[in-house]
Amino acid sequence: MTFAAASALRQIGAASWEGDLAPRWDIVGRANGGYLLAIAARAATLATGRVDPVTITGHFLNPGSPGAVTVDVEVVKSGRRLATARSTMRDATGRALVAALGSYGELAETEAPERVEAAPPELPPVDACIRVEPTETFPPPFMEQVDLRLHPEDVPFTAAGSRGRPRVRGWFRWPEAEPLDTLGLIVAADAFPPSIFNADLPVAWTPTIELTTHVRQRPVGDWLRCSFTTRFITGGFLEEDGELWDESDRLIAQSRQLALLPRG
Amino acid sequence: MTFAAASALRQIGAASWEGDLAPRWDIVGRANGGYLLAIAARAATLATGRVDPVTITGHFLNPGSPGAVTVDVEVVKSGRRLATARSTMRDATGRALVAALGSYGELAETEAPERVEAAPPELPPVDACIRVEPTETFPPPFMEQVDLRLHPEDVPFTAAGSRGRPRVRGWFRWPEAEPLDTLGLIVAADAFPPSIFNADLPVAWTPTIELTTHVRQRPVGDWLRCSFTTRFITGGFLEEDGELWDESDRLIAQSRQLALLPRG
Repeated sequence: MTFAAASALRQIGAASWEGDLAPRWDIVGRANGGYLLAIAARAATLATGRVDPVTITGHFLNPGSPGAVTVDVEVVKSGRRLATARSTMRDATGRALVAALGSYGELAETEAPERVEAAPPELPPVDACIRVEPTETFPPPFMEQVDLRLHPEDVPFTAAGSRGRPRVRGWFRWPEAEPLDTLGLIVAADAFPPSIFNADLPVAWTPTIELTTHVRQRPVGDWLRCSFTTRFITGGFLEEDGELWDESDRLIAQSRQLALLPRG
Repeated sequence: MTFAAASALRQIGAASWEGDLAPRWDIVGRANGGYLLAIAARAATLATGRVDPVTITGHFLNPGSPGAVTVDVEVVKSGRRLATARSTMRDATGRALVAALGSYGELAETEAPERVEAAPPELPPVDACIRVEPTETFPPPFMEQVDLRLHPEDVPFTAAGSRGRPRVRGWFRWPEAEPLDTLGLIVAADAFPPSIFNADLPVAWTPTIELTTHVRQRPVGDWLRCSFTTRFITGGFLEEDGELWDESDRLIAQSRQLALLPRG
């Protein structure tokens, strides 16, 4: 199922939308967090009339399962350049799944000064990277919904991936040649195996507390080159910083998430 | 005026607090964003009964001026470990200044694995750094409220600071020996001169759209060592990433903000 179909919404009130969490967008029974947040963002783009999530933060409150969800949106400010909105996604029982806060706009080419102190991650060509093939267990069914090609050195749970550096680099696109828009970037920012899986630590699961994505430009082309790194595992938490670059070698988005490290 | 006094709140309803934006906490007439967000966070700590802002995001909607503000809080989820709440700060005319979303908890020592791939910024001793002295214009009166000592190489608008690297490093503490708590870290994350001022670009002002702070631990001691860097000036936006380290050499907080670059 395409992302567009899996994140479609129907308006059911002045500031409320309804959708369905699709089957097989889950990781071990929990719908992917980026997918949930992208749906919450889509409702806000509809409420504000601005198509691009320039900066969006989601806090993950309860796991999502396939089935109906509602998203209520409150537009806090509608300015000339940006509109700021809160979204709350709830399941059919009224349980809150995601609370989001974002500022939305229309990204356009700009004459502002540019300076970029980094380059896209160095990746072997797509066909020389490792396709993440979905299974019923691990990797999970969600991996059907995205086309991920990992850097051979960064494949978790392999000899190469276990050298202790918490980093995952790879290519991302939608399967079925679906065009990639800025809502899809929110999924891309949370689609890869956690970088912590390459840290050589006894950690199998790190629930995301919060994910923030900044979108700088609309992507050109189908493929993204992505890099995710973790620098600070401390205090019972870890961050994961992402960079997403497009086929024109531009930084398209940055992401950071805070995840919980299970207590020892 | 101490931070505690300048951010004090009185409960005026089941989920509403009132406070006063203090005079001289402004930058060119606009109250410092970290200060506004810390007040919005304080209301949420009171509403949730959790004292530490583990992760908080604020979107800045309108500039704040000295005078009364209200903060309304909606607790979206109150879990065992974290409580998630939205805060909205409005001025006396009802205009929204800040929309915030945070998850709050009680930070404690943990047995979880630790791994830190960075060290505190290398700074000369406090007395060998450059005190930022407030003036009526620039640097602004806000600099009275914080005790900032900049790395001599990073002082904006000096020969050393103009070498084109968008980075600012320095020491932070409260004046008057006020203890530093985790709410104060939100101010520290937004107290330094923007790193963009060292980028050797014709940029005098970059309004913050959004600031996210992750707090990992409660700080030990009065002084923080802080580092702020900007890597991506593109698309009409820039980010500023902060790291805050305490006197026990621990990473206490990370911050990231998205700011607008004036259109060329």
